[in-house]
Amino acid sequence: MVKATEKKVLELIKRIKNGERRALSQAITFTESTRKEHREVAKGVLDKLYANNDNTVRIAVSGTPGVGKSTFIESFGINLIKNGNNVAVLAIDPSSEGSGGSILGDKTRMELLSKEKSAFIRPSPARGSLGGTNTRTQEAIILCEAAGFNIILIETVGVGQSETMASQMVDVFCLLLGPGGGDELQGVKRGIMEISDLILVNKADGQLKKVAETTRSEYAKALQLFRRRQVDPPLFPKVLTISSTEKSGLSDTWKEIETLISWRKHSDLFFRIREEQKLSWFYREITNSVNLRIKNSEKISKKKEEFERRIKEGLILPFNAAERLASEIIK
Amino acid sequence: MVKATEKKVLELIKRIKNGERRALSQAITFTESTRKEHREVAKGVLDKLYANNDNTVRIAVSGTPGVGKSTFIESFGINLIKNGNNVAVLAIDPSSEGSGGSILGDKTRMELLSKEKSAFIRPSPARGSLGGTNTRTQEAIILCEAAGFNIILIETVGVGQSETMASQMVDVFCLLLGPGGGDELQGVKRGIMEISDLILVNKADGQLKKVAETTRSEYAKALQLFRRRQVDPPLFPKVLTISSTEKSGLSDTWKEIETLISWRKHSDLFFRIREEQKLSWFYREITNSVNLRIKNSEKISKKKEEFERRIKEGLILPFNAAERLASEIIK
Repeated sequence: MVKATEKKVLELIKRIKNGERRALSQAITFTESTRKEHREVAKGVLDKLYANNDNTVRIAVSGTPGVGKSTFIESFGINLIKNGNNVAVLAIDPSSEGSGGSILGDKTRMELLSKEKSAFIRPSPARGSLGGTNTRTQEAIILCEAAGFNIILIETVGVGQSETMASQMVDVFCLLLGPGGGDELQGVKRGIMEISDLILVNKADGQLKKVAETTRSEYAKALQLFRRRQVDPPLFPKVLTISSTEKSGLSDTWKEIETLISWRKHSDLFFRIREEQKLSWFYREITNSVNLRIKNSEKISKKKEEFERRIKEGLILPFNAAERLASEIIK
Repeated sequence: MVKATEKKVLELIKRIKNGERRALSQAITFTESTRKEHREVAKGVLDKLYANNDNTVRIAVSGTPGVGKSTFIESFGINLIKNGNNVAVLAIDPSSEGSGGSILGDKTRMELLSKEKSAFIRPSPARGSLGGTNTRTQEAIILCEAAGFNIILIETVGVGQSETMASQMVDVFCLLLGPGGGDELQGVKRGIMEISDLILVNKADGQLKKVAETTRSEYAKALQLFRRRQVDPPLFPKVLTISSTEKSGLSDTWKEIETLISWRKHSDLFFRIREEQKLSWFYREITNSVNLRIKNSEKISKKKEEFERRIKEGLILPFNAAERLASEIIK
C-alpha cells in the first residue's frame, strides 16, 4: 500500500471509531468508487474494521413505491433509538444510470430520524460520484457496524433485483403492503412472499384500519399456501398490521424480529445464513473487481480498441471478438 | 477448433440455411450454454453466418404484464407474414433464476402464429438448459436473420432491465399500453417513454374503443412534454390505437415502422445505431466471457476455494478476497 493511502486509511478508521459521521460517509463513498486509489483506501479501511459482528441486526424493508417505506423506516427507527439502539439506514438500488435517481436521495424525507444523534442515514450514491456506479450496500453495512450502529435498516428501491440483492445481505426481510384486498395480493410476486419473514400491512389507521385488518388475515391465509421453511419457528412468516403515523405495531414488529433472530441463533441458522452471505458477497465482488481491472488497464484498453475498430468495419462478430479478448485477458 | 466441433458447425450451418427450424433452435441453445465446447460451436456458427443484414427489421414489443403483448405479437406477426415477410419472435428475459419462468415459455400462447410456415417462435430458455442462464437474444437475432427471417419481434419480459437491454438490440421500440387514463400514465416510467418510437394503445375495440382513443390523445399530449429526438421525422414518437382482436391498426403500425426506418436509413442514423449496438454487444459479452472463463478454469477454481475457506473462517473480508483473486486472474 502506498504511504498516502495508508495514512488516509488510518485517519478514516480513527475518525470512524470516534463517531464522526462524515468519516463514515467518506469511507462508504470510497467503496463506491471505481478508481484504483479509492478502492485501495476502501480495502484498507474494510480490512482493519472487519470484526465479528454477530450482535448486529440487518433488516430489509421492501415494498412497492408509495406503500410508505420511508415513513415506516422513520417511525420504526425512532422507536428503536428510544430503546437504546443505534440505527443506520441504507438503500439498495441496483438500477442503472438510465433509470434515474434514488428514493433516499433526498435526505429530508426522513427529517425527524436524521435529526437523531443515534441515527445515520445514507442516501443512495449520486450517479458518478467518484466515478461510482454500484451501490455498495454490503460494504456500507460493515462500515456502519464498525462505527457502532447495531441495527441496519435497508430500504429496497425498485423491484425484483433489489429485493434479491437485499435478501443476500440481511438477517430479516420485511415486506410492507398497503391495506387493500385481492388486487393487491395479485401484485405481490410469489418470489418476494417466499423471502419475507415479516409482512407488515401498513396504514392501519383511521378509516383504513378495518381494511388493513382484513388484508392482514387474507395474507395470513395466503401464506398457508406456501410451504413454511422447516427451520423457522412456528407462525413465521408472520403478518402484522402497523401504522407509521399512529406509531402502532412498531414495538410488536421489533418483538417479532427479536423472536425470529433468537430462534435462528439457537439453531445456528443465523450464523449459517451470514456465512452464506459472505460467500455470495465474494462471488459478486469477483465479477466487479475483474470488470474494474479490465476497465482500468491501459494494455487491455488498447486491445479492446483494436477489436472495436474491426467490429465497426464488420470484420469480426462482437461475440467472437469478446471471446478472443477474454482469452487474452485471463491468465 | 476441434474436428468434432467443426463438423457440428458445418452441419448446423447447412441445416439452418436449409430452413430447418430444429437446427436454428439448436444453434440458439448452443449460444445460451455456459459450457466451453458448446460456446465453441456457437462461435463457429455465428462467425460463418455473420453477414450484412441491413435489410432486416428488429422491433421490440414492450409493456406491462396483461397489456396484451403476446396477442399483439400474434396478430401483428400473422399480418406481416401475409405481406410476404418471414417473422421470428424472441423474448428478452434478464431475470435471475429465482424470479421464475418466462412468459414465452408456453409456446401454445401464440398458437396461430406458431402454425405459420414463415414464423419462428423461440421461447425463453428453460433455466439450466445446457447449463445456460443468460438469454442470448442478440445472438438469436443474428441466427434468425441468417436463417432468412427478415422481421424480428422481441418481446420484453419483466420490467426495467429487459427494456434497456432490448433498446440496445432493436431498430424500433414499441410500447404497448392499455386503454385507461391518468393512473396508467403515471405508471409508465419516463425512461421507457423516452426510448419508445411507437406507442400503441391496445384493446381499442368494443366498449373500450372510446377510452382507448382518449388515452391515445392524452399520451400524444404528454409526449409533447418530452424533447423529441432531433434526428427523427416529425410526429415521432407516435401514438396509435390498435386492436389485436379486431386486427385494426396493425397495418398502420407497420406503415409507421417503415416510415421511421426509411427516414433513419436516409439520414444514416439507422446504420450508426446498429454500429453502436454492435459495440454494446461486445462490451456485454466481454463480461460474460470473462466470467465464464473464470467459472470454467480449474486453476482459478482452486484459488477460489482457498479464499472461500478463509472467508468462512473469518480470516479475510469477501471484498478483499475478491480483489486479491481478481489481481491473480487478470493478466
